[in-house]
Amino acid sequence: MKSKILLIVCDGMGDRLIDGRTPLEAAKKPNMDRISAKGINGIMDTVGVGIRPGSDTSHLSLFGYNPFEVYTGRGPFEAAGAGIEMKTGDIALRCNFATIKDGKISDRRAGRDEYGLDELSRDIDGMRIQGTELIFKRCKGHRAVLVLRGRDLSPCVSDTDPEKPEILYKKSTPLDKNPNSKKTAEILNEFTERTVKILSDHKINKERVKNRKLPANILLSRGAGVKPELQSLGERYGLRAACISATSLIKGVCRTIGMDVIEVDGANGHIDSNIHLKADAAIKALKDYDFVFLHIKGTDEASHDGNFNAKRGMIERIDNEVIRRVLQNSGDITIALTADHSTPINLKEHSADPTPIAILGDVRTDLVNSFSERDCSRGDIGRICGRDLMNILLDISNRARLFGA
Amino acid sequence: MKSKILLIVCDGMGDRLIDGRTPLEAAKKPNMDRISAKGINGIMDTVGVGIRPGSDTSHLSLFGYNPFEVYTGRGPFEAAGAGIEMKTGDIALRCNFATIKDGKISDRRAGRDEYGLDELSRDIDGMRIQGTELIFKRCKGHRAVLVLRGRDLSPCVSDTDPEKPEILYKKSTPLDKNPNSKKTAEILNEFTERTVKILSDHKINKERVKNRKLPANILLSRGAGVKPELQSLGERYGLRAACISATSLIKGVCRTIGMDVIEVDGANGHIDSNIHLKADAAIKALKDYDFVFLHIKGTDEASHDGNFNAKRGMIERIDNEVIRRVLQNSGDITIALTADHSTPINLKEHSADPTPIAILGDVRTDLVNSFSERDCSRGDIGRICGRDLMNILLDISNRARLFGA
Repeated sequence: MKSKILLIVCDGMGDRLIDGRTPLEAAKKPNMDRISAKGINGIMDTVGVGIRPGSDTSHLSLFGYNPFEVYTGRGPFEAAGAGIEMKTGDIALRCNFATIKDGKISDRRAGRDEYGLDELSRDIDGMRIQGTELIFKRCKGHRAVLVLRGRDLSPCVSDTDPEKPEILYKKSTPLDKNPNSKKTAEILNEFTERTVKILSDHKINKERVKNRKLPANILLSRGAGVKPELQSLGERYGLRAACISATSLIKGVCRTIGMDVIEVDGANGHIDSNIHLKADAAIKALKDYDFVFLHIKGTDEASHDGNFNAKRGMIERIDNEVIRRVLQNSGDITIALTADHSTPINLKEHSADPTPIAILGDVRTDLVNSFSERDCSRGDIGRICGRDLMNILLDISNRARLFGA
Repeated sequence: MKSKILLIVCDGMGDRLIDGRTPLEAAKKPNMDRISAKGINGIMDTVGVGIRPGSDTSHLSLFGYNPFEVYTGRGPFEAAGAGIEMKTGDIALRCNFATIKDGKISDRRAGRDEYGLDELSRDIDGMRIQGTELIFKRCKGHRAVLVLRGRDLSPCVSDTDPEKPEILYKKSTPLDKNPNSKKTAEILNEFTERTVKILSDHKINKERVKNRKLPANILLSRGAGVKPELQSLGERYGLRAACISATSLIKGVCRTIGMDVIEVDGANGHIDSNIHLKADAAIKALKDYDFVFLHIKGTDEASHDGNFNAKRGMIERIDNEVIRRVLQNSGDITIALTADHSTPINLKEHSADPTPIAILGDVRTDLVNSFSERDCSRGDIGRICGRDLMNILLDISNRARLFGA
């Protein structure tokens, strides 16, 4: 009677209107439409009505956790994504390799060029400042993680990442009166100064400049946080759960709530990712797991680049390479298709516009026959909060616990 | 200006699709459809989105109480339903007369045969174990209530009812480290052992076996709880309120929140219940009460039996014998028609699928003209939580208090 559950999240897939239609409305996506037509549809505020979610807070919410209660910052999830086991008292931050020129940040991602970043990372890892150990580990692309391990640290410090180019990098400042926050900000600022010195003279950066690449000569950090104490998905729902994602932050969220992370070759989080292999991995994982979460990042990347056609193309690829495969090969399961948030093309940033959601399974099929933001909003699910999704999926798959008698 | 309120709850009436339609969609129910057509419609998560409600938690929520805050277990409501006045410190449990054979539970309801259960109950009532008084009282059918009265008791004990047949009955175990829980579990286990002895040799059971009935030779208990401290419906909403229900648990919930319980001859909670007499009693009660709650159980019974035609038939009976009567005879009142939860035929258990709700009265009539799960979901009420229903009914009947100035 119980069915397996497959949750497919296309990152940032929701959008607003460009020339009267959203990328989803413009895309040819017969397989997504089949889910809508045979399923039940609605719209979802992943974190809350009018709340612009990050990818971490939205996914926490999609898995049933209240980010307003449990979110401690991006850093710890990046650390978990990078495979660093955080200890109580550790502070983790997400870092970017970036380019500084004439004192200003000229590129927040060092041209997204990965040349030599591994070597740079090795030379940065392992500093000690004010008796604190600094663990530095590179993730994909220009991304990295910094973990501060020592006594009397605090996550209440401001970011050094200004989050936009062409301005000075910021000094970290304490965000409260706790002396630990002052100490942590000092450590972070000294880390930044020391790394600027290490990086600016580094032979890798000389090679980068020689090869007309931007130098990776500063590290910008943000999202300081302690390890969140979260009940696992298994304890919470009795589910054996697996995650398939190329995105370190998302893998980190999933690891933190006890999901197994399945790695897929060629899955890179870009619009040229090997998503059909991710679909195959998900179908395979459904044999061993009760709940499989399949995350596809390309839609969000195209959105941040403001590229309507690329986003529409990515949606069509997902339709053909993921949804078609899943519908053909996964048998009698419960499937939910949605986005973690909207990333409107004209904004190039996350927005709080609700996302479409379609669920296929033992549901009361409604009248919607096309999967898009506006079509789904006329479906019988109505408008729900992301935090309720897991309970709905557990109910539809006949796995929900009875409350009362 | 104020109108009277009649809330009609058809237990477990919501469903999923069987051959493309729900029992409500398949039923001929012109009077329910009249409520939808002249009224306003929606769907309702009685306890919460994706939460599978019990009958007790769902009714608490329908009456405006948050079961996540106030629910203490099924036992106390069963006790109240059976007319036992609980005292502070008492622990109440719901019991089933059941059949044990070769050490295994062969029937959880002793064949639903009531022969001799009153006499058996009298012989069980009044034990003393570890200084604790054990009050045992039979309810309808195979159901009974056990109240433990004494010092140092705890509701944190597991059930002895395995909730499915063909396995051993369970020993009660403490659910926390409190020594009172250990003591209470011991009392419960000794009660079970002693009753097995009393029942297995009892002349009533010899007669039952002789007459080819299953012996009622064990008592299974569940839902231990203390008396919940609830504000009455009168205090909460200023309503004089009456309940008409054949179901002990529901009567218990209503008594606990200070409603008068009106008994109706021939109302038995089954699909052959005298529901037209319940309708007449409700119409009559509306003269004396502001708020009348009419509960009909048969739809849930047919659902638990997995009998689509019986459920459809029961819906048609309710339409003709209850709704028609009420519409003809109750005058200018506010009527709400809904279910406390869905009990899909193919599940035979409660599910979290939202229930349809239609409200007739001084409302902004919408476009829905048929009462069913899917039709109502397209109505102007949208999707609401059961806990909001009382406030909506108070407002429509012009009884709501102003908040603010």
